[in-house]
Amino acid sequence: MPMHSLADLFHETLRDLYYAEKKLVRTLPKMAKKASSPELAKAITNHLRETEGQVKRLEQVFDLIGKTARGKRCPAMDGLVEEGEEVIKEADDDATRDAGIIAAAQAVEHYEIARYGALAEWAKLLGEGEAKELLGQTLEQEKNADTLLSDIADTINQQAERQAAAA
Amino acid sequence: MPMHSLADLFHETLRDLYYAEKKLVRTLPKMAKKASSPELAKAITNHLRETEGQVKRLEQVFDLIGKTARGKRCPAMDGLVEEGEEVIKEADDDATRDAGIIAAAQAVEHYEIARYGALAEWAKLLGEGEAKELLGQTLEQEKNADTLLSDIADTINQQAERQAAAA
Repeated sequence: MPMHSLADLFHETLRDLYYAEKKLVRTLPKMAKKASSPELAKAITNHLRETEGQVKRLEQVFDLIGKTARGKRCPAMDGLVEEGEEVIKEADDDATRDAGIIAAAQAVEHYEIARYGALAEWAKLLGEGEAKELLGQTLEQEKNADTLLSDIADTINQQAERQAAAA
Repeated sequence: MPMHSLADLFHETLRDLYYAEKKLVRTLPKMAKKASSPELAKAITNHLRETEGQVKRLEQVFDLIGKTARGKRCPAMDGLVEEGEEVIKEADDDATRDAGIIAAAQAVEHYEIARYGALAEWAKLLGEGEAKELLGQTLEQEKNADTLLSDIADTINQQAERQAAAA
């Protein structure tokens, strides 16, 4: 679809992220199930709840700009999820798999941080104050999720390393 | 390939990033060529030079862990590059295209920040101090590239918005 303006770019990127978040809602439960650390499983499940709220926020933003909420395939999120599935399939010990799941989840968070950052900035430029506010709320949640994953990683990675040293 | 330890996960992720950086070396010149803002084109070209250095650093890290430098397909980078190509193809005015290129480049930077962050952390846990140092150097470059893109975005996005308002 041709884009003639920042408003079009905003709309197309919103559709991309809508697809991405809905894909995550389907993917996160599988990741939580494969996590061995209860702390990690819980963090992923909590983030699933947040992600469901983020989908709703995106629907509000579609509404604010007078568009129907409709996703479009986001090849980046497809690739990120594929990498997460790969690490789950290939890691054959718990600590390594957990470390891989965290890293995959952080790559997803960083993708979203970049995308919500751009969308919030564009919403501001387009004079869409309410949309900017909603997108900014999600952006903060994604940053917090990334920080929490780093904290959990500190624990889990040390565990993986001890396991590697003992092997 | 099955991964039995953090060392295996480190090696596989290194291969993934090696493929990703080499793909970027081929992609960045195309992005620079499509940028209308001379400031943006210059930033991308400068980052191409940095990326070439990052490829060399990854080769040093392969060497440090006694492995041959060999990439493996990274679906996330494939998807990120596909999104960048899409926005270039679909945007039919200069300011919108530039805003889209910046956002796509920032998504790439954030992916790399997540990946280098994980690799540097794992190198530390694995007692690979020199590798950690090299990966940390690249991590800083990626963060700086992201900040620079945000600064350029401030200028370019405002331009796109003025154009949209005038349309």
